Amino acid sequence: MTQFINAKESVVTEAILGLLRGAGGKLARLDGFPHIKVVLRSDWDRTRVALVSGGGSGHEPAHAGFVGAGMLTAAVCGDVFASPSVDAVLAGILAVTGKAGCLLIVKNYTGDRLNFGLAAERARAFGLKVSMVIVDDDVALPHLPQPRGVAGTLFVHKIAGALAEAGADLAAVTEAAQRVIAGAVSIGMSLDTCTVPGSPKETRIGAGMAELGLGIHGEPGVEQVNFLGAKAAMQMVADRLRPAMGAGPYVALINNLGGATHLEMQVLTEELARSGIAARITHLIGPAAMMTSLDMQGFSVSLLPLTEADQQALSAPVVLPAWPGMVALTAAVAVPVPDGLIPIQPTASAHPAHRALIKTCCEILMTEEAALNALDAKSGDGDTGSTLATASRALVAALDRLPLADLTQMYRAIGMELSQTMGGSSGVLLAIFFAAAGDASAGGATWIEALVEGLHRVQQVGGAKRGDRTMIDALEPALAALPQGLAAAAGAARAGADQTARMDRARAGRSSYVNGDRLLGHNDPGAEAVARLLERL
Amino acid sequence: MTQFINAKESVVTEAILGLLRGAGGKLARLDGFPHIKVVLRSDWDRTRVALVSGGGSGHEPAHAGFVGAGMLTAAVCGDVFASPSVDAVLAGILAVTGKAGCLLIVKNYTGDRLNFGLAAERARAFGLKVSMVIVDDDVALPHLPQPRGVAGTLFVHKIAGALAEAGADLAAVTEAAQRVIAGAVSIGMSLDTCTVPGSPKETRIGAGMAELGLGIHGEPGVEQVNFLGAKAAMQMVADRLRPAMGAGPYVALINNLGGATHLEMQVLTEELARSGIAARITHLIGPAAMMTSLDMQGFSVSLLPLTEADQQALSAPVVLPAWPGMVALTAAVAVPVPDGLIPIQPTASAHPAHRALIKTCCEILMTEEAALNALDAKSGDGDTGSTLATASRALVAALDRLPLADLTQMYRAIGMELSQTMGGSSGVLLAIFFAAAGDASAGGATWIEALVEGLHRVQQVGGAKRGDRTMIDALEPALAALPQGLAAAAGAARAGADQTARMDRARAGRSSYVNGDRLLGHNDPGAEAVARLLERL
Repeated sequence: MTQFINAKESVVTEAILGLLRGAGGKLARLDGFPHIKVVLRSDWDRTRVALVSGGGSGHEPAHAGFVGAGMLTAAVCGDVFASPSVDAVLAGILAVTGKAGCLLIVKNYTGDRLNFGLAAERARAFGLKVSMVIVDDDVALPHLPQPRGVAGTLFVHKIAGALAEAGADLAAVTEAAQRVIAGAVSIGMSLDTCTVPGSPKETRIGAGMAELGLGIHGEPGVEQVNFLGAKAAMQMVADRLRPAMGAGPYVALINNLGGATHLEMQVLTEELARSGIAARITHLIGPAAMMTSLDMQGFSVSLLPLTEADQQALSAPVVLPAWPGMVALTAAVAVPVPDGLIPIQPTASAHPAHRALIKTCCEILMTEEAALNALDAKSGDGDTGSTLATASRALVAALDRLPLADLTQMYRAIGMELSQTMGGSSGVLLAIFFAAAGDASAGGATWIEALVEGLHRVQQVGGAKRGDRTMIDALEPALAALPQGLAAAAGAARAGADQTARMDRARAGRSSYVNGDRLLGHNDPGAEAVARLLERL
Repeated sequence: MTQFINAKESVVTEAILGLLRGAGGKLARLDGFPHIKVVLRSDWDRTRVALVSGGGSGHEPAHAGFVGAGMLTAAVCGDVFASPSVDAVLAGILAVTGKAGCLLIVKNYTGDRLNFGLAAERARAFGLKVSMVIVDDDVALPHLPQPRGVAGTLFVHKIAGALAEAGADLAAVTEAAQRVIAGAVSIGMSLDTCTVPGSPKETRIGAGMAELGLGIHGEPGVEQVNFLGAKAAMQMVADRLRPAMGAGPYVALINNLGGATHLEMQVLTEELARSGIAARITHLIGPAAMMTSLDMQGFSVSLLPLTEADQQALSAPVVLPAWPGMVALTAAVAVPVPDGLIPIQPTASAHPAHRALIKTCCEILMTEEAALNALDAKSGDGDTGSTLATASRALVAALDRLPLADLTQMYRAIGMELSQTMGGSSGVLLAIFFAAAGDASAGGATWIEALVEGLHRVQQVGGAKRGDRTMIDALEPALAALPQGLAAAAGAARAGADQTARMDRARAGRSSYVNGDRLLGHNDPGAEAVARLLERL
């Protein structure tokens, strides 16, 4: 089994139950499983025209996902890609139709036409007013006498649904549906076939090929074409739609056939908006999966000439997650990038004591380069010493332009220098350390408190805490001891660094991917660097 | 290329443009492509706390799809599965943050933590109030020190978003986010890997296997398990979530990782509602694709303990197609199937003339069985004669229980008999013919008018018209001539039937799949049946 189902025989009934679970009580089903699979509004009072659609399953969210106030009243679901029976359709009609009557919205497939058609006759024999429209929006073949009904069906659901909800009578709703059907055109394209539950997947479309002019039942497209990217694909689709288009304006419905990613659908939407027919498209519905063919990695574009009345009906709000709403097709607005990405260089200032301290620290770390590299080589890639030494050299070279007399600005400037000269995670973390220290200093913290705040921020961002075998194991106890003097801090750092040699598991940073046996007996090079720095100070 | 993209280098920027096209002007982007990919609300006035999220792309609709009133203020998008840069995040923060400050919502991946973390520091250096939370809802490994951030992030977006929209201050929004993060747990399962744009697809998961405990970047799950159907799959997921659960109530977010079909997601939803943890789940978000891993055929379940405040925040309406809304998890309501599916047998009545006419017609068709079969064999499967003869024999056998004295009831009863005894499309079409004739008769039509109405209905439902090489080619002219008498009707039927032999293309019915060469020179067997019936009458 290659799908999240239990058995192909039960997939549709179980899926309907799942749909009802997620509908918050707004949907019900007829108690006729497995033969009668009808989803209907639970709040329906039969006071207005009922809209019933349906057909084979495998096109979700169509049709049951569109049952709700302002769209369908009921959906009659067949098995996957199989028409529901006459009895099932009749049950659906009888369940929702009151004096106002019922419109059946049927996609143009022989089985659906016949079963819905005969059900309509039977319902009429009960004295019910039933009309039926056949959606045939597919323009895959220009002269096909019986074009298929595909995603353009959604236009009918929404427009007829809005009219019925507003209280229009059956004749008006039917007439509107027929007008929409006369105007709607659709075409689909896919890069792959779909997977029918319980059946092996057909491999019909070769690499580098696409099928154009698809139905929604896995049947082959009317032609295979070379696939040359999203732009060319949308151009082909636009070329097939153009002969059927008038002056416009049009609303375009861009439909995911099931298996295209959101990224692909968004790229295709942009290509539609840049295509040769875009000038006549004023509104957009989607991209969204509305009329799918199971997991088919494809899309379709449907167009409808947009009258003011239809625009209102398509815009009428509905509370259905499956309906993405209609929006005006707009240009993509770009607003300027805000100032401030290029940091303002702080004004350099002199402070001999700060200058001497920084210089000494850097020189110590430069001296320890080889030793720290050797230690890192035992558990990592042997570059801790070089990384620190390179940053130290850069910092020394920058001393003349640092704002040394202002502790806040100095911390921030060190952070900025380090983020620009040190690569990788450690550079970012040290940059955060000094930037946060600068913030704390600006807020009135002492220089030690500021460093402690820097440490906190590094821990929050980096996610490491003591015991995780990182430089924090030395830095945290050192900063805690610093109020007692440099010697106490150095001692605490040394003790902390030496503890890392007894940790058989790194919990953060790159060493967390290294087997514990290789770690035991060696100090963490970052923690060791902190200890050596403080000892030699 | 196996995806609807133009190039892997441009997929994210083009997708963002496509997203903006479909947003009806509610979204804008920063003008910093390709390096700075930031989507933001176009109507944002900086008067409230800004929410900024983001990370690598490939998780659509997350995060840009959740930018809008009541959820995110901006999303910073990296390339596919790659963290955005510090500059990009900083640009996003600066673009939307006012005096009320900004909350960064970051998923727990090292790159995102570091880049968002440093950007936060830089923004603070500008005097902006910025706080940051790290989402770590993944419970794939119970004791992982750094759990990943996955679909539970949506809880944070929605709850923090609702608070910020309502005017809560940064401390309150941050505290709520942290509380949600502390309570949220998630786990995912997949049947296949995902397709990274521009890269070949990894085939890591064998047939019959699934991966449990997935991240959202295509990395392997923590274990491979045997896949035994949707029920067992959901049970495994529930078993992993249960140890992290308290007494409840919980809201469950059921997320499509990208490539599962709607049918599968609905089946999984039903299984969740039947699972061992269902009793503690009171509300549901989804099923929907919210935090995807490109086209991965998988799902995840996220849980959050549901306080009254969080319930309000999660229920607050937003106009974002990507957010499916939260509903109460309900039982699936089944309402009784309506009466009327089993037709009431009409009361039999006698009418010698009608009886004789029906009997004669049936006998004629029985006599022609072999001839019509032979004709059908030239273009079809050779059973037209037998189909009609079988139905005729059944109708003769039913004569005693037909309501022969009431034309309306008689037509309807003939339709019902035919639909029960004739198989296939022709049975349904003849049933519709007589049922519609019955309706018209009930409406006051003469017997000829009623038959014409039956023909119209058959044409509407079957989609065939004259010239399509069907029985209509004989029936339509015959009914048109019937007011001039039976002889005129027979002559018209004969002429119509003979015309079908000159049609090289069938446009409706099964013959439409047959090569025209095989059709030329032979009458359509349905049309021929009509002609012979009338001639012999």
